Parts: sequence; structure tokens; C-alpha cells
Amino acid sequence: MPLVRINVDAATSAEIRQKLSDIVYDAMTSVAKVPVNDKFVVVSTHERGDLIYPKEGYLGIDYTPGIAFIQVTWNAGRTTDVKKAFYRKVADDIHEKTGIRKQDVFISLVDVSPENWSFGNGEMQYAPK
Amino acid sequence: MPLVRINVDAATSAEIRQKLSDIVYDAMTSVAKVPVNDKFVVVSTHERGDLIYPKEGYLGIDYTPGIAFIQVTWNAGRTTDVKKAFYRKVADDIHEKTGIRKQDVFISLVDVSPENWSFGNGEMQYAPK
Amino acid sequence: MPLVRINVDAATSAEIRQKLSDIVYDAMTSVAKVPVNDKFVVVSTHERGDLIYPKEGYLGIDYTPGIAFIQVTWNAGRTTDVKKAFYRKVADDIHEKTGIRKQDVFISLVDVSPENWSFGNGEMQYAPK
Repeated sequence: MPLVRINVDAATSAEIRQKLSDIVYDAMTSVAKVPVNDKFVVVSTHERGDLIYPKEGYLGIDYTPGIAFIQVTWNAGRTTDVKKAFYRKVADDIHEKTGIRKQDVFISLVDVSPENWSFGNGEMQYAPK
Repeated sequence: MPLVRINVDAATSAEIRQKLSDIVYDAMTSVAKVPVNDKFVVVSTHERGDLIYPKEGYLGIDYTPGIAFIQVTWNAGRTTDVKKAFYRKVADDIHEKTGIRKQDVFISLVDVSPENWSFGNGEMQYAPK
Repeated sequence: MPLVRINVDAATSAEIRQKLSDIVYDAMTSVAKVPVNDKFVVVSTHERGDLIYPKEGYLGIDYTPGIAFIQVTWNAGRTTDVKKAFYRKVADDIHEKTGIRKQDVFISLVDVSPENWSFGNGEMQYAPK
């Protein structure tokens, strides 16, 4: 269900890009009740200068060109606490496993309804009963 | 109104990319009451490894690197039946016209409100009366 | 808070891409109460043919390959009037400062809730009190 978009600098290695996908998937399944194997991620790389962040920082956080934008479209209904735990785990694990600064982990969520997905075969797998 | 994002492997030919756009547009207008000529699509190509799907499959469906991610942002209000018919037509037509496997057609919808669009000229064309 | 996605033709110079980001940010802060320094933009460039618009035009507007797709994910709550003013300023300023036609400025908004953001450090900066 979630569709994850990850946008990183073109200098980010394929290995790190794969790790970012794995980490977000792991956080989704372990703290946000996303089903096992529900792992759909689109990674895009960008020329230096095309990932734009405030040079002055924002809310006391400063950023570098190593910023990783992560946007997750998933079903509505997750609580504030679950979302907080998700942010925490994603940032902590990314830092630990890739060395990317925690400050550079930007996350955006988009909540949709269960009818809004087809996982292939032209079917609405989460159709209401 | 819809803004369609299509993400495919870099090996996908320009001809197939064009066909994907045409097919999604055709399904939107024929089964989902999208107005004629309301055809706005952004196609992105990705290096092998940057379109990530579960190797074990999901809900009984298996995927290949030929997976096509289709995300449609459009106005809320379409029924479950309309969404079902849309998924069906997109997957069937993509398979018939491009040879892409039906299993590899992943669709995500994002519902927004009519005030959320400007189709050019700095105007809100769907402004409430 | 807003995450802005800008999609333009690959022929668009880095300078123009930077200007587009600056202009959208300026419009967000000056007419839509987006906080200062809340500037997060992802710019993507596309091969000719991958930014698709209706050749016949739509709602009386015609488009060229110079079309710029701008999608803003931000917090819900902005009024119709604010959104109108935002569209107006973005299109006017883009035309004035980059020469891009006003007709080619396509804007899509996605409204989300304040809990849906982490601006780094694994924190939910806009958490409810």
C-alpha cells in the first residue's frame, strides 16, 4: 500500500539507495503496521542544485546536499504516536546504516483511502467488503 | 485535473512511455468522467534497481523490473466502482497495447479538492461559483 | 512544510530551475502564510516527450514543451482566496522572471495534516500540543 518516493543527490550510490528503501520498508512494517512484503519504492536521483533546502536552516535544523526527501503515500488512520515512532525509526536507522545525517532526513506523509490502490492485475485488492 | 505520474525503467522506449500516457488518459476519460483533453502526465525513467518491489510478491502477485508505477492525483468523489473499472481498464489496455504484464501495473490514487488546480494562466479554473 | 515538486524539460537551465524554486517559495511565504525558510523543493528534469499535455489545449489554454508542472504538498486549511492568490503570483512571477509562458504554469495542490511532516532529526515538529 504505501508508495514511497525517495529523492536523493545523484552522488548517492546504488547501495545506499537500496539501503534507504530497505530502512523505510522496515520502519513501515515494524512500527506502522504496514503488511509484510508491501514494499513499493520509487527512487529518483537529482543533479546537485535540484534538491533545494533552506540555506539558513529551518526550526533549528540545518541541511546539506546529502538531504534525503522521503514521501510516503499510505492509508489514513495511523495515529500521531505511530507517525512519531515512524519518523524516529527512519531517521535513526538511516543515520546508523548509511551515515546520512539525521538532520537531512525529510519525511512527508500523504494519507489516502483503501480503495485508492491497485497492486497489479487491474484489481482493487483493498476493496470494501 | 488529474496529474498523472508514471515511473518506469529506463529501458522503456519513448514509444511505450507515450502509449502508457495515452492509455491512462483514455481510461480516465472513458470510465472515470475526466474531461476530454484533461491530459497532464509526467513520465520519469529510473535506473535498474531504483523501482523497488517485493521479491516475494505481494497478495499473490509477483513483479518484474518491468513494473510501471502510476499515481493519479485527481478530484475526490469517484466511487469505488468507478475506481475498480479504472484499474481494470488501465491494466487490461496496458497489457494489450504494450505487452507489459498486468501484474506489473501498480496504481495509486490521491484525491484532492477542485480548488487545488491551476491549469495555467495563474487561474483557478475549477473555482466554486 | 510544503514539499514542492517541479517537473520541467531537460533543456531548462539550472539557473531557471533555481529561479522557479525561489519564485514558488516567495509566493508561498508572501501570500499563503508559509513560514520563512520553509523551503523544500525537488526539481526533476525530463526528456522531451515525457512531460505530456493536451495538444488541443484545455479550457482554452494551449501548452508548449516549456510547460512547468508544480505540485505542492502542504497543510490543509488555506482558503480558496489564498489559493487563487498563490496561483496568480506564481504564474505572474514565473513569466516575469523566467520568460516561461503563463499558460505553461500548471499547479496542483495536495492538502495534508500537520502531523504528516518531519523536517529532520526524526522529530514531528508540528505535533499537536
